[in-house]
Amino acid sequence: MPDTFPLDPGDPETAIAAAAKRCSNWGRWGSDDVHGTLNFLDDNKRRAAAALIRRGASFSLAQSFDANGPQKGWRRRTNPVHTMLDTGVDAERGNQGFPHGLGGADDVIFMPLQASTQWDGLGHIFDHGMAWNGRRAGDVVTSEGDLVTGIQTATGRISGRGVLLDVGRAIGEIDELPDGFAIMTEHLTATMKAQGASSMVGRGDLLLVRTGRLARARREGWGDYAGGASPGLSFTTADWLHGSEIAGIATDTWGFEVRPNEFDVAFQPLHQVVIPHIGLYIGELWDLDALAADCAADGVYEFWLSAEPLPVTGAVGAPVAPVAVK
Amino acid sequence: MPDTFPLDPGDPETAIAAAAKRCSNWGRWGSDDVHGTLNFLDDNKRRAAAALIRRGASFSLAQSFDANGPQKGWRRRTNPVHTMLDTGVDAERGNQGFPHGLGGADDVIFMPLQASTQWDGLGHIFDHGMAWNGRRAGDVVTSEGDLVTGIQTATGRISGRGVLLDVGRAIGEIDELPDGFAIMTEHLTATMKAQGASSMVGRGDLLLVRTGRLARARREGWGDYAGGASPGLSFTTADWLHGSEIAGIATDTWGFEVRPNEFDVAFQPLHQVVIPHIGLYIGELWDLDALAADCAADGVYEFWLSAEPLPVTGAVGAPVAPVAVK
Amino acid sequence: MPDTFPLDPGDPETAIAAAAKRCSNWGRWGSDDVHGTLNFLDDNKRRAAAALIRRGASFSLAQSFDANGPQKGWRRRTNPVHTMLDTGVDAERGNQGFPHGLGGADDVIFMPLQASTQWDGLGHIFDHGMAWNGRRAGDVVTSEGDLVTGIQTATGRISGRGVLLDVGRAIGEIDELPDGFAIMTEHLTATMKAQGASSMVGRGDLLLVRTGRLARARREGWGDYAGGASPGLSFTTADWLHGSEIAGIATDTWGFEVRPNEFDVAFQPLHQVVIPHIGLYIGELWDLDALAADCAADGVYEFWLSAEPLPVTGAVGAPVAPVAVK
Amino acid sequence: MPDTFPLDPGDPETAIAAAAKRCSNWGRWGSDDVHGTLNFLDDNKRRAAAALIRRGASFSLAQSFDANGPQKGWRRRTNPVHTMLDTGVDAERGNQGFPHGLGGADDVIFMPLQASTQWDGLGHIFDHGMAWNGRRAGDVVTSEGDLVTGIQTATGRISGRGVLLDVGRAIGEIDELPDGFAIMTEHLTATMKAQGASSMVGRGDLLLVRTGRLARARREGWGDYAGGASPGLSFTTADWLHGSEIAGIATDTWGFEVRPNEFDVAFQPLHQVVIPHIGLYIGELWDLDALAADCAADGVYEFWLSAEPLPVTGAVGAPVAPVAVK
Repeated sequence: MPDTFPLDPGDPETAIAAAAKRCSNWGRWGSDDVHGTLNFLDDNKRRAAAALIRRGASFSLAQSFDANGPQKGWRRRTNPVHTMLDTGVDAERGNQGFPHGLGGADDVIFMPLQASTQWDGLGHIFDHGMAWNGRRAGDVVTSEGDLVTGIQTATGRISGRGVLLDVGRAIGEIDELPDGFAIMTEHLTATMKAQGASSMVGRGDLLLVRTGRLARARREGWGDYAGGASPGLSFTTADWLHGSEIAGIATDTWGFEVRPNEFDVAFQPLHQVVIPHIGLYIGELWDLDALAADCAADGVYEFWLSAEPLPVTGAVGAPVAPVAVK
Repeated sequence: MPDTFPLDPGDPETAIAAAAKRCSNWGRWGSDDVHGTLNFLDDNKRRAAAALIRRGASFSLAQSFDANGPQKGWRRRTNPVHTMLDTGVDAERGNQGFPHGLGGADDVIFMPLQASTQWDGLGHIFDHGMAWNGRRAGDVVTSEGDLVTGIQTATGRISGRGVLLDVGRAIGEIDELPDGFAIMTEHLTATMKAQGASSMVGRGDLLLVRTGRLARARREGWGDYAGGASPGLSFTTADWLHGSEIAGIATDTWGFEVRPNEFDVAFQPLHQVVIPHIGLYIGELWDLDALAADCAADGVYEFWLSAEPLPVTGAVGAPVAPVAVK
Repeated sequence: MPDTFPLDPGDPETAIAAAAKRCSNWGRWGSDDVHGTLNFLDDNKRRAAAALIRRGASFSLAQSFDANGPQKGWRRRTNPVHTMLDTGVDAERGNQGFPHGLGGADDVIFMPLQASTQWDGLGHIFDHGMAWNGRRAGDVVTSEGDLVTGIQTATGRISGRGVLLDVGRAIGEIDELPDGFAIMTEHLTATMKAQGASSMVGRGDLLLVRTGRLARARREGWGDYAGGASPGLSFTTADWLHGSEIAGIATDTWGFEVRPNEFDVAFQPLHQVVIPHIGLYIGELWDLDALAADCAADGVYEFWLSAEPLPVTGAVGAPVAPVAVK
Repeated sequence: MPDTFPLDPGDPETAIAAAAKRCSNWGRWGSDDVHGTLNFLDDNKRRAAAALIRRGASFSLAQSFDANGPQKGWRRRTNPVHTMLDTGVDAERGNQGFPHGLGGADDVIFMPLQASTQWDGLGHIFDHGMAWNGRRAGDVVTSEGDLVTGIQTATGRISGRGVLLDVGRAIGEIDELPDGFAIMTEHLTATMKAQGASSMVGRGDLLLVRTGRLARARREGWGDYAGGASPGLSFTTADWLHGSEIAGIATDTWGFEVRPNEFDVAFQPLHQVVIPHIGLYIGELWDLDALAADCAADGVYEFWLSAEPLPVTGAVGAPVAPVAVK
């Protein structure tokens, strides 16, 4: 399988512009659209997906949300800080002042919305100052948040058929891809072939791509899991991501794309195509390992998936607690 | 139907102790149990619930998470504050320093975990210094969080059959119950009867009780929606909640219970029985209105429900973006 | 004394432009200047001010920083939320795991930097997209903060001679000015005359203007103290504020200016002149009552004042714990 | 000079108990006292200190408060996160909706109160469950904060005579002490002798001890500045700290004490004596370098010092922007 980069590594601008033009969905669902590829996931798709619940076995795909996470503070992306407003210790000691022996505990959190398992909203990435569907970035996301495509617009829309492509297992050694491994379209199709019929990807699907990067971090420590070298999608998969008409895609990595990026001087060029131009929902920092083990065991790579983002008004991304049910 | 309170309003201690004794599930799932009534919701229940997805229509049951919420600061429960780390305005202006025209937006949130649509975890309420399953409160929830029954233990476990009892519609005028209305067991059974066979409640179900209180707040403004007078469950439903073997229950109110509480001097006495003694998961601040309208329209009050809490490690409650699919 | 507004209330734009032109300090301290009127407060001024410490009596001029403050959430300005990371209750119970009987308590805060007693930095207000000293607002304050005039540039510079003009006591009934009372230049000079020689205001001084508004809030409850009607400086004092060459000015009100503002449709027009054009440091939400009582008692209205802002890098304002010493 | 540890390194409990007994100030200022050693700093001391302002030169002793600080997340002590509520970029673009060309910027911070330059309050450390003045720790610091000795009790009280003992310069090579260097009483007295008469320390003084540790961090990067090896006060200085009757002490290190601590298995044993038993205010993470350079240049090591903590209600410590004036 070819895994050499067919584009000029010195010219990301041209490559991005060309891919953006080929893959653009601007106007496809009207000039007012705020849903992007979630439009592919309709009631019919959802109804069909229900048949994939065969055993009732459920798998949480969320990483934990706590101070021991992978974040290292890049652009103020820190790990969540969870603190208590009331505790059981106070309750037990009688410090709380409630009547009839009642005691309570409450808590609070401070966290970047990209700190752990999350969906990128359509206002997360811009191309030359333009946002999804041809809007000016400065009209969409101000200091008050995403005024147009805030993540709350997605709530109630991200439940349907999930498909796992365990590229780590199909292609990698010890079920993991090495850092810097660019997942090309060929790898995706080879994985589908290796996994069999249940893993065919089509319109309206929620595609999960497992690289094994999280498994390695779990084994070796976070290291540079957040922002460092990683396997991930190649820039060259933009056309496949567009043509497949998937509703969303999520990976077990920090940044979805291969890192370092494939151009000489670049930062997340595939994001620049798929979010503002395709309108694609991208999930990052998902934990696909338990689900993947089950899929490997029973050979079934499709399932019901609910992955509704927390509807933080105006958010450009949001935490999510996805659940797959087989 | 009787709606007078059969207990001594001057003696909550005795009533709570008696109900706790009658309804205790301590030890039912072993001394190490951390799941409480979620044990009732197993793979078989989940598999059966899949058949309830008939049309693929989905309904988000989450209120929004933002500064315009109902919280008034009681015990430092404020509304969420969402701020931006990067914006589209900066991206458009070229302030960000990314290569090849990339722009990005990121954000952060500070919020009490009980600020909006949420599950109470089993470490949220104590009875005389004791937590779920007979543990000492001070051993369970310290300043470091819930060390035993943290909400992350529930993730992946709260998807299954949901049932809506729209008591507001069945019993109330203009589809809403008045503030101070105590929903007795009789009201629950009458609602089931009025709604028909699809609303029978049983083991492992996720029960949604709509009072109409949120619809009123939406119409009239928040007012004292958070913490003030409200319809809600009567203390006397403790035995029914225990005997029904439901996995969880959620309402469209701030506090699940009727407010003011039914005893003369009291604070959330039903919580004191159902969380530490029954081990029941309680959801609050859910938005049941769109779902209820659909149920009224088609007469079907059962559905698939996914309501996985955000797995904040050690949290005594957590935000959730529940989705019902019919 | 005249207290009628001599300008066209229907035309704030013209009035602001004219005042800005008359009062501009742009370029006065070079094109690179980031200190504005703090340039007036030099070592000589500071040395002279030391002589004002006669008794060693000190007065904190800070309001408290807590959840019970006046903020009502306008533009997400909430009250501070203070939570504990470790407590004495945990320490006493032996929950912390430290050796040799050590116990500890730690805490964390979330707060808008304008929540309580604060200095406005020079990046806090703009006039038609322009910031202090003629810079473009978008070059100065981005999502990353104030890149040029961040409040940390002021640290170590705001200690010197303080003067209190207790206009509330000199002009008002019961030592308080009514809401909507516009403090004109005449009121300032009349107060100086009434108070005597120690209250003459000059170059490099830190001027404190007491209206009595906080005393009323303390007596009657916060009400609309934050953002509502209030006595305060008249727009017409811009020239006096410029000509007096004070280093900074602070009041016991939320917003420094009279509220409602004097133009028909306006928002804080005096800010728009004094911050970006004069480069004046404005303090708000100061507590001047204890100091004022002492000044009234001994007739001495000048003192040493240290009011160093917390040096939050890139902040456009910052909390401060000012102390006056007489 | 001796710098060997005269106590049994294997028995911190006995040494702490003995020092606590010798140095206890419990009851010295009455059973209700909340000020501890700040009682030593009275108006007379403050008046005398004013004479130390000779040139009017001021020195900020605060480190910055930002995401680039030394904190590494120990016990959730993270670096401050500062975000914007409004920006100049939005103002310039006309996104804000204010009238007459007004634009504004506002901001918010989330930070542990021990994140940067701070005072430890008297509720910060406990000895076997006991807090300052003989109170039970669980009566003093609950989840609601320090109910008795909250840092707001200190505001308005920490201005007076400051003295710098630049032990790094007097004892160290290249003006810095090596990590693990325990500053003994002999080193303090030797420094006083080397520095001359202006550095004699006495009752009510605010003592600043410079080790040079921050200068090294500034040169080499933070590394383990927060919590790692460091020069600092020896446990054996407890009696001197008690007998000198200083009002407070601050260092340029993370933890005031030498690290590693001098006992075999220990954590901050000197804190355990000086805070709960002596009632001593300890400042940490101060930046003494600019002041120290000036003192070395003119040979004057005493000055006016204002170091009023931010009065966060109930805080067990608080950020401070100290200023020394010579």
